[in-house]
Amino acid sequence: MQLRLKKWIVTATKVLAALAACLLVFPVVWAFWIARGDPDIREDQHAQYIESIRPADPATAPSIVVIFADDLGSGDVGSFGSTAIRTPHIDALAANGARLTSFYAASPVCSPSRFSLLTGRYPPRGFIHSVFFPTGTFMGLLANNFGFPHGIRGIPADEVTIAEVLQAAGYRTGMFGKWHLGDRSPHLPTDKGFDHFFGSYYSNDMEPYALYRNGEVDVPAPADQSTLTIRLTEEVLAFIDRSEGWPFFVYYATPFPHEPMHASERFAGTSQAGLYGDCVEEIDWSVGQIHAALAERGLLERTLILFTSDNGPWHQGSPGRRRGRKANTFEGGHAVPMVASWEGRIPASTEIGVAAMTIDLFPTILATAGIPLPNDRRIDGTDLMPLLEGRSATVDDRQLYFARNGKFAAVRGADRFKHVARHRSENSAYWIGRHGPFLFDLDLDPTESYDLSRRFPAVSEGLAGDLRRMNEAVRRNPRGWLEP
Amino acid sequence: MQLRLKKWIVTATKVLAALAACLLVFPVVWAFWIARGDPDIREDQHAQYIESIRPADPATAPSIVVIFADDLGSGDVGSFGSTAIRTPHIDALAANGARLTSFYAASPVCSPSRFSLLTGRYPPRGFIHSVFFPTGTFMGLLANNFGFPHGIRGIPADEVTIAEVLQAAGYRTGMFGKWHLGDRSPHLPTDKGFDHFFGSYYSNDMEPYALYRNGEVDVPAPADQSTLTIRLTEEVLAFIDRSEGWPFFVYYATPFPHEPMHASERFAGTSQAGLYGDCVEEIDWSVGQIHAALAERGLLERTLILFTSDNGPWHQGSPGRRRGRKANTFEGGHAVPMVASWEGRIPASTEIGVAAMTIDLFPTILATAGIPLPNDRRIDGTDLMPLLEGRSATVDDRQLYFARNGKFAAVRGADRFKHVARHRSENSAYWIGRHGPFLFDLDLDPTESYDLSRRFPAVSEGLAGDLRRMNEAVRRNPRGWLEP
Repeated sequence: MQLRLKKWIVTATKVLAALAACLLVFPVVWAFWIARGDPDIREDQHAQYIESIRPADPATAPSIVVIFADDLGSGDVGSFGSTAIRTPHIDALAANGARLTSFYAASPVCSPSRFSLLTGRYPPRGFIHSVFFPTGTFMGLLANNFGFPHGIRGIPADEVTIAEVLQAAGYRTGMFGKWHLGDRSPHLPTDKGFDHFFGSYYSNDMEPYALYRNGEVDVPAPADQSTLTIRLTEEVLAFIDRSEGWPFFVYYATPFPHEPMHASERFAGTSQAGLYGDCVEEIDWSVGQIHAALAERGLLERTLILFTSDNGPWHQGSPGRRRGRKANTFEGGHAVPMVASWEGRIPASTEIGVAAMTIDLFPTILATAGIPLPNDRRIDGTDLMPLLEGRSATVDDRQLYFARNGKFAAVRGADRFKHVARHRSENSAYWIGRHGPFLFDLDLDPTESYDLSRRFPAVSEGLAGDLRRMNEAVRRNPRGWLEP
Repeated sequence: MQLRLKKWIVTATKVLAALAACLLVFPVVWAFWIARGDPDIREDQHAQYIESIRPADPATAPSIVVIFADDLGSGDVGSFGSTAIRTPHIDALAANGARLTSFYAASPVCSPSRFSLLTGRYPPRGFIHSVFFPTGTFMGLLANNFGFPHGIRGIPADEVTIAEVLQAAGYRTGMFGKWHLGDRSPHLPTDKGFDHFFGSYYSNDMEPYALYRNGEVDVPAPADQSTLTIRLTEEVLAFIDRSEGWPFFVYYATPFPHEPMHASERFAGTSQAGLYGDCVEEIDWSVGQIHAALAERGLLERTLILFTSDNGPWHQGSPGRRRGRKANTFEGGHAVPMVASWEGRIPASTEIGVAAMTIDLFPTILATAGIPLPNDRRIDGTDLMPLLEGRSATVDDRQLYFARNGKFAAVRGADRFKHVARHRSENSAYWIGRHGPFLFDLDLDPTESYDLSRRFPAVSEGLAGDLRRMNEAVRRNPRGWLEP
């Protein structure tokens, strides 16, 4: 017995010593990790490109309004099939312009999706694999410092955003709502091209939830969220007012219907679809306010208005008849409503079934403003104006890649096929084990229910190879730098 | 330092001693657990009821054929909206009889669902909370002995199955395919009322996968699954042939489209929907074979044919536009196709939108055969014949409860509302945290996307209260015994 006890004590001491050693090593590794900085940053190239941009002609340059909802599903808008939610203003935009029925967010979660919208590049190019958490919180500590889920603190300083380009061209640039691409310089909206910012650095479920104006706290945490849509709408309208005589770029990222949902007194309890519906109907009201302000000022013929969402619906909201929800590689995670309106340029009642993605906004907007793309880096998106104006029936033969957790997990071919790589189930009851790869025919099978990889082995292997090569290319050159 | 080290040693010793104590206690608890036997078994009452059943008149008693698919989704059948899979024979059954569009499996997973079909009772009444695993395997050891996921080894011996009742009434009773309610006596098909059994005790992904005939191995593991549907069809046809002159009960539980999927040479690679579609089209062929055999023998006017599935689709297969899949409390987990056909009794092209469930088969079949229900236990289902024959437009004012893991997790009211209790997300990306409770209006919102509990607080609280009372009642009297 004496001997056994001694053995125990020795073993326990060893275990505890190992633990202590880990605890000693940990802060050292951490310090190095933090000190290493963001990877492969090329500030010079960024500055060179921005300097190369020529001023736009204020008399002719078109204004741009991007309205980006949060967690709004592809089945939550009237003109996209919702019978439960009324969205007359978004529907009117669609009726006067184009409705894109195969439009995807570049990521099924927030921060990477926002990165892609602003840069025209797939999320892995910015090392943005998942969402950012507030600096100073435990999750922020893990998230921002340990590569969990990614190793950077915000959008890389050398990324070129739509706002930086248009600002350099003399546009008035304003952002309103949810940023979620970093909460410290050089990652703030005002660092990345916005003259004016009013909103939050995070999702509305992250604390402290304060509202900032140009780097300073404007409404201390906890900000009242019930009047948030009204407040943001007023800010957008005031900005449009202040921009009189100048082309402007509005990036209005609504914080809803992301949870926790809030609606103002006028909308709370009024929709058929509960608080979720109230939120969406208030966003629709907000879209109507902005449209009316542009109409009043006679700006509709000079303004491209785009409305879409950052990913599919979360615990509430409808993905239509698509499989999966937010955070899934299936259609329900990526498919979002998309409406594009520009009086006189985009024909009324245009219906576009061609697959497109939020990475296309950057090249579309730059082409619209007559500004060349940067040529030092890969821009993954494509100018959609030929499609929107009816000058072309397809974008090109491109494939669209679906990023998740810093890798590409699926690819949609130029036609009806989508290849989903081997994956953990999206069903929480079966998260052990892996499934696939799957090949889906989205025309035949919009719910992604039937794997056709044995029926079309060449298509399946072709897309699997493309996906593998894309992942390899991003591993070799994550930032997508093009050598001159 | 000396003092601190000593403290460490003491702490470590305590930790290890606690661990050792657990290891000592564990086998003792286990031994008791195994020895305790199945809970609250009343063999006498079972025997009394069976003895009370009077023989049916062979000249007039209707035959019954139940075809029960495995993991077939509500969107996988032509007459239920599939454009990818051809099911002409199932569709013909529906065209000549009734199609139930709000039909539910009693559980979103296999074993509990099968329990309910055979007994007319909700799964918690049989202590069957999840699936059974083979005795002798590691999972079987956990599953069958530790209450993980339940504490019994098979369907309780005192449960009354449709087969026992019809057997006692003089029917020829045959089961073909997947049993999955225990792999030892007294839990075998031949213990529970089937004169004849041919098939497997488990799902086709569980090993060893042998085929048994009446308790003996007929095809040793691993059985060839590619010819399984043909083989089972032949067995069913031979049984119908052997039953000439007698009323019979066929319970044909197809092992597919549960994974791993297999189709015979004639069907492999022929459907538009991949191997999944091949499987379903072969099942449809099998349905056609059985229908033709009944027609040939002039039995269609004397046979009630029912076709349905044990739960929603797993990693493949379509839930239509419903939320969730197998193992989820949402509609996609429970909703299944249901077709009922009986020439001369059920009018052609009958469409039934009234919510019904597999618990209704036991009372429907007993009523059809003119046999009274047992009166010593709660039978949760209702006779559907008035509905099927068009004599009634509703079942009654009943609510349907959705069982998961031994508890009721949702309830559908008599009207359009469904209450889903607070739950872990069905989305594997968000399995931490809980969501809901949700109140859904299934007419307005078939994708279960909008919580209306604030809009209809009385409905929400009413259903929540019903669910709580139901769970309490089952906790107090799980078996549902009725005291005389």
